[in-house]
Amino acid sequence: MANSGQPALIGLDWGTSSLRGYLVAADGSVIETIRQPWGIQHLPSGGYAEAYRGVTGAWLSSRPDLPVLASGMVGSRQGWREAAYVDCPADAASFAAGLLRFDTGTGPLAIVPGLMQRGRLPEVMRGEETQIIGALAADPTLAARSLFILPGTHSKWAVVRAGRIERLQTFMTGELFALLRDHSLLGRPAREADPTGTSAAPHTIDAAAFRQGVTVAQESGPSGIAGRLFTTRSLWLAGDLPAAASLDYLSGLLVGEEIRSGLAARGGEPLPPLVLSGEAALCDRYREALGIFGVTDVRVLGDTAAAGLWTIAAAAGLVSAAATSPGSFADA
Amino acid sequence: MANSGQPALIGLDWGTSSLRGYLVAADGSVIETIRQPWGIQHLPSGGYAEAYRGVTGAWLSSRPDLPVLASGMVGSRQGWREAAYVDCPADAASFAAGLLRFDTGTGPLAIVPGLMQRGRLPEVMRGEETQIIGALAADPTLAARSLFILPGTHSKWAVVRAGRIERLQTFMTGELFALLRDHSLLGRPAREADPTGTSAAPHTIDAAAFRQGVTVAQESGPSGIAGRLFTTRSLWLAGDLPAAASLDYLSGLLVGEEIRSGLAARGGEPLPPLVLSGEAALCDRYREALGIFGVTDVRVLGDTAAAGLWTIAAAAGLVSAAATSPGSFADA
Repeated sequence: MANSGQPALIGLDWGTSSLRGYLVAADGSVIETIRQPWGIQHLPSGGYAEAYRGVTGAWLSSRPDLPVLASGMVGSRQGWREAAYVDCPADAASFAAGLLRFDTGTGPLAIVPGLMQRGRLPEVMRGEETQIIGALAADPTLAARSLFILPGTHSKWAVVRAGRIERLQTFMTGELFALLRDHSLLGRPAREADPTGTSAAPHTIDAAAFRQGVTVAQESGPSGIAGRLFTTRSLWLAGDLPAAASLDYLSGLLVGEEIRSGLAARGGEPLPPLVLSGEAALCDRYREALGIFGVTDVRVLGDTAAAGLWTIAAAAGLVSAAATSPGSFADA
Repeated sequence: MANSGQPALIGLDWGTSSLRGYLVAADGSVIETIRQPWGIQHLPSGGYAEAYRGVTGAWLSSRPDLPVLASGMVGSRQGWREAAYVDCPADAASFAAGLLRFDTGTGPLAIVPGLMQRGRLPEVMRGEETQIIGALAADPTLAARSLFILPGTHSKWAVVRAGRIERLQTFMTGELFALLRDHSLLGRPAREADPTGTSAAPHTIDAAAFRQGVTVAQESGPSGIAGRLFTTRSLWLAGDLPAAASLDYLSGLLVGEEIRSGLAARGGEPLPPLVLSGEAALCDRYREALGIFGVTDVRVLGDTAAAGLWTIAAAAGLVSAAATSPGSFADA
């Protein structure tokens, strides 16, 4: 394709804690990426408009006609403009039909709506739907039937069938871990052993303590970890868990409980192909934990937000659909 | 008994957030109570010694020979002096045999040891063992076979058989609730609706929202609430849960999960007589939640710490055992 290297879209993955900009070529490949810490809770003094100009400015100055499409918490009630939820089940065309378009003052911006599963216990996601759409575009075999796990502050499980996101579930695993580490009695031994938090970097993982936590969660069976969480402290009190390993044990308990609960909720239903998508180190933890539960057929994808933004932009006619091809998105 | 009104013991229930002093008569009845906010994490500037003199000073000045017995976190590793754990199973005599005695500088103090259940997943309690001993003294029918639930920051479940505390389990229900209320995304709508927190007083409980949370936890079955916690937010986002009711819903989810988990861990084993012991408003919540699980045969006891201190003091010979009689402790 002659224009494959030419910019065709600016994609923004705009979440709570960061803003990623992608300059996407006409074949869907990413030409350039900019990452700024300007998540919707960490905006620069000039607010959304300044963050927007900061990331898109240089690209738009040379190509002011480029369409811009954003996904994530920027479209939430606390975001720049609220993009109303689309209902489950939904595919790329549903999100395209629900785009919120407005004038930023420096040109038009479209925002991908979030996804809501209505019912007595509703569920929502914002941003993850775009990652899933990107993954499905990258690998059409996943579209038929798959189970996505997107680990993070709020880990999302999503069932995909026939190209549509059908069911959602949220696990607050990452937020719970951070709360317990930073504020609870469970985190105190580690906080006191390492007040600066410097040795809490991901590379110092105590893999054995993590696996121990996952195993305790698995063995808790139908009672779950509500009555086991405190063992993070009692094992330390009994001299059986060093302070430095206690946070990995806690992480194992929480990740293990997420997996235990998610699998238990399926009853005996056989698992469809399972996909992990998100930050690499976190996906590694989840893959290891899934293995302890006997789930070893797991595909790990990296960041597929750019591919998702491209696919939704194409479905919305923001870019030329002729240029799109699922084969053009490689696994990260 | 001629001396029934004469002081015979000073009992101290010295926990993390408060210090309660009891002047106990020779028949085990409480003559006077002093409560100070001097928990081991909120000591006055003069530390333990100042808090100790502040509560016991007036009583000891008129009766310097009175024995003083303390229970609770004052005997923990972070406390005044560490009183080594006694192993499960344990009765009043076990705690009496394990008393830590030392000179405070203003006379001798004895501290009740905590209780540890050893094993691959150890469990501990400190202070609650004394409450349970007090309840057993108050009602010998409970000593044969009973299940205690002591709700709180760290809710404790304890199985009693033949007068001994046999098994423990800790649920961090109260601490989790406070963390989620004060620091998580789940607590944000309520925090923003009422930034001063003034309307969060116990008397404004939204009973329907609490029951709804308990019911969701109950219906979660073997998968538990790991994937339901977030409904506190999604129900609010969907317009189905007012911000002002969201914390009671969350409380219901967490209390419900404690009960669901605790009952599930028993398998099909029939429930022995169930006792709730602790702060009255909290016990009410637990009684209501237990009712939703179909557990209605529940006895609610108030604070039995003074009775427990008296019983252990008698077993240790600190006071005249002849004066003790289970019948002298009334339910609070």
